Formats: sequence, C-alpha cells, structure tokens
Amino acid sequence: MAERTEISSIGEFGLIEHLTRNFEWQQASTVIGVGDDAAVIDHFGKQTVITTDLMIEGVHFDLIYTPLRHLGYKSVIVNLSDVYAMNATPTQITVSIAISNRFSVEALDEFYEGVYAACDKYGVDLVGGDTSSSQKGFIISITAIGELNPGKVVRRSGAQKGDIICCSGDLGGAYLGQIFLEREKKIFLENPQVKPDFEGEKYVIGRFLRPEARKDIIGFFADEGILPHSMMDISDGLSSEILHICKQSGLGCVLYEEKIPIAEDSRHAAFKFELDPTACALSGGEDYELLFTISQKDHEKLVLNEQISVIGHMEEAEKGCKIITKGGNAFDITAQGWNAFR
Amino acid sequence: MAERTEISSIGEFGLIEHLTRNFEWQQASTVIGVGDDAAVIDHFGKQTVITTDLMIEGVHFDLIYTPLRHLGYKSVIVNLSDVYAMNATPTQITVSIAISNRFSVEALDEFYEGVYAACDKYGVDLVGGDTSSSQKGFIISITAIGELNPGKVVRRSGAQKGDIICCSGDLGGAYLGQIFLEREKKIFLENPQVKPDFEGEKYVIGRFLRPEARKDIIGFFADEGILPHSMMDISDGLSSEILHICKQSGLGCVLYEEKIPIAEDSRHAAFKFELDPTACALSGGEDYELLFTISQKDHEKLVLNEQISVIGHMEEAEKGCKIITKGGNAFDITAQGWNAFR
Repeated sequence: MAERTEISSIGEFGLIEHLTRNFEWQQASTVIGVGDDAAVIDHFGKQTVITTDLMIEGVHFDLIYTPLRHLGYKSVIVNLSDVYAMNATPTQITVSIAISNRFSVEALDEFYEGVYAACDKYGVDLVGGDTSSSQKGFIISITAIGELNPGKVVRRSGAQKGDIICCSGDLGGAYLGQIFLEREKKIFLENPQVKPDFEGEKYVIGRFLRPEARKDIIGFFADEGILPHSMMDISDGLSSEILHICKQSGLGCVLYEEKIPIAEDSRHAAFKFELDPTACALSGGEDYELLFTISQKDHEKLVLNEQISVIGHMEEAEKGCKIITKGGNAFDITAQGWNAFR
Repeated sequence: MAERTEISSIGEFGLIEHLTRNFEWQQASTVIGVGDDAAVIDHFGKQTVITTDLMIEGVHFDLIYTPLRHLGYKSVIVNLSDVYAMNATPTQITVSIAISNRFSVEALDEFYEGVYAACDKYGVDLVGGDTSSSQKGFIISITAIGELNPGKVVRRSGAQKGDIICCSGDLGGAYLGQIFLEREKKIFLENPQVKPDFEGEKYVIGRFLRPEARKDIIGFFADEGILPHSMMDISDGLSSEILHICKQSGLGCVLYEEKIPIAEDSRHAAFKFELDPTACALSGGEDYELLFTISQKDHEKLVLNEQISVIGHMEEAEKGCKIITKGGNAFDITAQGWNAFR
C-alpha cells in the first residue's frame, strides 16, 4: 500500500521545505527564491521582488463580519507588507478571484473598491489577474511585484549577534479584533436581534479588518541611511516570526516583555476578554508590522521615530530564544503562530 | 433594495472590463496592464512580463481522470503559454496551493513532480508561493514572470489589415481528449468494473492532460527575425481568440475552414464521438497553441516551419469576422469559447 503522510504532521513550513528540497535554479536572474517574505529577481541594475498570497473564504476570512471593501483592501495590504519586509517598494499587483454565483457584480465592485483604495494609497498598479467561478466560497490570489536597489535587500537570515531587535507600531490588536468579531458573530447567530456594540473595540477591529503596510518604516530607513540586517513582517505573531529570524540567521535572541509595544486599546480589550496582552502580541497574528534587527551603532537614529520599539537583542545560538518577563523570569519562546493546517 | 447584477449576465470578459474601467496607473514602469495575455513592466532596459492563473478543482480540472503529476505540469504550462504569447521568455514562477486534508504529502509530491518537470523543461525557476488549507477541493494559483526585449512585445491589439493569420500546431485535440475522459468517467461511475480503453485516444488525451507551451515558435521568430503584429495563446478556442484580436485591433478577418490544422487522430476521435472536427477546433479550448498575425512580406519565412499553418487574413472592420467553409459559404464567427460563468 502506498505511504500516506498527513500534512498536519509536518506543518506548513515543513511542507514548503519538503516540497522545494530538491529544486535547483536555472535562471541567472533568480537571486532569492522560496523561504523569505518574497523572491528577488535581478533585472540589469535593479532587482524585482515578487510575493504571492492565496486567501480562502472560511479559512482566511469570514464574510459574516468582513465587509468586502475591507477584504479587498486587506488582501492587497498583506502582499505589500511582504514586499516592504524585503526593504523594497511595491509597484504592481495582479489580483485573481474565484467566486460562486452567490456573489453579484455589485458585491465584486465593493471588493475592488477596497483593492483600488489600497493601490491608490500605496502607489501600486493593478496590472492583471484572472476571474473564474468557484464551486464554493470566495477565493483571492494576489501577487505583488516590487523594486529594489541591489545591495539593499534585507533577508530573514542576515541577523548578527548583538543586533538590536525592533518592531514597528504595536502588536496583538488584530488578534483581539478577530476575537471580538468571532464573539459577536456567535452572539448574533444565537440571537439575531442583539445589536453588537463596537464602540469600545473600534481600535482592535480596525487593526484586524483594515491593516496597513509599513511603507513609512521603509522610507525612514532610506532617509536615515539605515540598512537592517534582517527583517520580516509580523503576520503569524511575534514569537513565530522571531524564531524564523533566529533559525535562518543561526542565532538566539532575548526579548523583554515590558518592551513589547501594545496599544492601550488592545490592553483594555485583552483584559475585557480575560486574555494576557503579551500572549496576544506573541501568538496573535495579522498585525502586519515589521520585525527587524539592526546594528547597535544605528540605535541612536531610532529615537527619531516613535513608531519603532526596541524589544530585545540577538544572541549566540547556544543561548536559545528567550523572553524575559516583567517579573524577571526567562522563558523559552515557542512558536504558536497561526498554522493553516492545525 | 440594493441592485443585484448577476455575473453571468455580463460574462467573464465583461466582468474584467467592468471591474477595471476606472483604474489609472501610477507607476511609470507599467507598460501593459489588464486585457492582454500578460502585463508588461519596464525595468531599465529589459521588460518584465507577468501573468497569473487560478485553477480550481471541479471548475478547471477533475481529479477523477487527471493524474496529479499531469495537473502540476499543466498548471505551469498554461502560465508559460501566456508569457510566450507576449513574445517573451518565462524565467520564474510562483506556485500557491490550497488543499483540504484529504490530500497527503505524497499526493502533493506528485503534483510538484509535474511542476518541477515543467520548470526543468522550460528553464524556469520556482521562486515562491503560498500553501494553505481549503475547505473544499484543490486550488492552484500560479504566477509566471518573463523577460522581454523592449520593442519586441506582441500584443493582441497590433494586427494590421492584410496581415496573414497563423496558428501553431493543431487544434481541437485537447477538447476531444476532455470529451473522451468525461465519457469514460460517466461509464466508470455507472459500472466501476469496466476497464476504459485509451489506446485509440492516446493523442487527444495527451493534448488535454499534458499540453506543451510553444517555446519553439518564439525561438523561431527570434531566429528568423519575425515580429508578429499581434499574438495570443489559444486557451478558449480559435473563434473566441480571433475575435479578441479583431476587437482589440479594430479589424475584421477571414478564416478558411480547410486551412485550420487538425491532427488525423483528432479528426478520427471527432468522428467517433459524432462531432464536427472544425467545431472542436473553433470552440474547444485548452490547446495552448499560438495564434498570431504577421505581415505578408514575412510569409515566405514561414515555409521553413511546418509547425505553423496560415489560416486566414485580417480585413477591415466593416467586412466582419468570417469563416469560409469547405463548401465555399461564409459564416460569421461567433465566440463559443469556454466561459467559466456559463
């Protein structure tokens, strides 16, 4: 009998490693392939960055509480975020969708309004795509292309011992927004008469439904002459992402719980839902902030930007990957990021 | 009440036109966007071509008769074909898939074997992708990137009056292969004991399950110094494609039924299934041959290549789009290509 290995037994990253293990590049222009936020292709002086994401109704989004306009916007943002995470500038996108006949042209118009709003805000062009029918649900596949000056690419694997670990914005909000919307959905399904009260949770809901990509941080790096040693975007939660950087750079790290930026509104929401705000920042996903490491000598440049928090530093591999809690205890960081196969 | 327009009422191409009607490009590097086989992006001396396709189980393929290895191969080919249709050379692809837990790692290995076989044969690199779960079925999204020398791009809209209309290879075979497999599937579902006999239909089944992209034709153009005026690949059937070229070039055309290349095996299969071979060539899809128009002065160069058939010529728009049958009658060409929303 043929062997059968369950995909859940090796996980998403294991699966990607498994499927790409024997493949060798043939094109001289291929600079970076599978395994980073985006691939890099050389084009005679400038480099092209390419990244792609597939989003499926019921797996990646829930149309009960996701307005189509926000969905269009967010679908673009998650791809642009991957381009910025390479220290590149997104320039074009393609958008492919598949829909069942439950969607009208007006519904798609709403979705594309969001797509175009994101294109407009981030200065990218929609240059192609594919439209077809699905048997069930809404399926979105977006590819983003970006430009990069050679020598400016920032990979996950470039962190150095002693690097300062930084992140942009604040963390955990998107996860709390999702928790809130899931809770309201449950209440609504049990009793459609109850009107949800979004007032106190506006911030976290906004973080979840309509995230932004950190174009400003990439611009700040360029203005200040900062070239991070390593970088990625935080889509699966801080702990999962810092472990990627540690693993791919062959290093360990120390994070400080008290340094992890969490918005007041997120903290408030976490307490209301009886969750630990730090756990939300570490394990919640979809914040689309940037996580990066820089040389200590660039430290003083950072004080100019209050959107950047220093949250730890890189260590030698033997020291492991630790988080120092507010109480002063050191714990191992474990990946509890989002896993589509769980 | 909000207006509701059914997508089926405007069709796939109407939908794309509708959704992209108000969008203006912001990037100087965007050369060609939505509406051709692929988009074109300028990169300081060379140009990049990008195209993407979304394939969904139950809509675009049926796993009852499609081996996963062939599916992987074909998924790549349909994208490479779009790159060649711009007169460009594919260089990289990204492959995103979503799968339900009914698929094992071994099943995915088979799919990727096909992907890698196509990459290997056509010299392209797999540089990225995304892997996630689906609620139902297998979903594949592939994006292909290619290189192009500026000035060499061939669009759908460039046909000129008097141009010779040509196509590569032979047509209708893939459609007949699908008809055969659908018939065998029906027999199998009614009586699983009956062993299907593929012997006589090997050619058409191969055309459907494992098509190739016409890299050779693009190489021939380069070698002979031929620059077609217009070109596209035949994925939806000859009639649908020639109407695209006519519409986008603002011209009419005349095709000659007797000139349309149909393989002997396809003709044989058509008669067996009581179908008109010409109708299969005109309205069947998925042959992935190239349809192009060239200047009359390049006509004599074509005799060197027996893979190219001259099938008609471009006319002024007022003459309409006609096909002259073997009996000498002229009929209007109507689009009966594949429409995912039908």
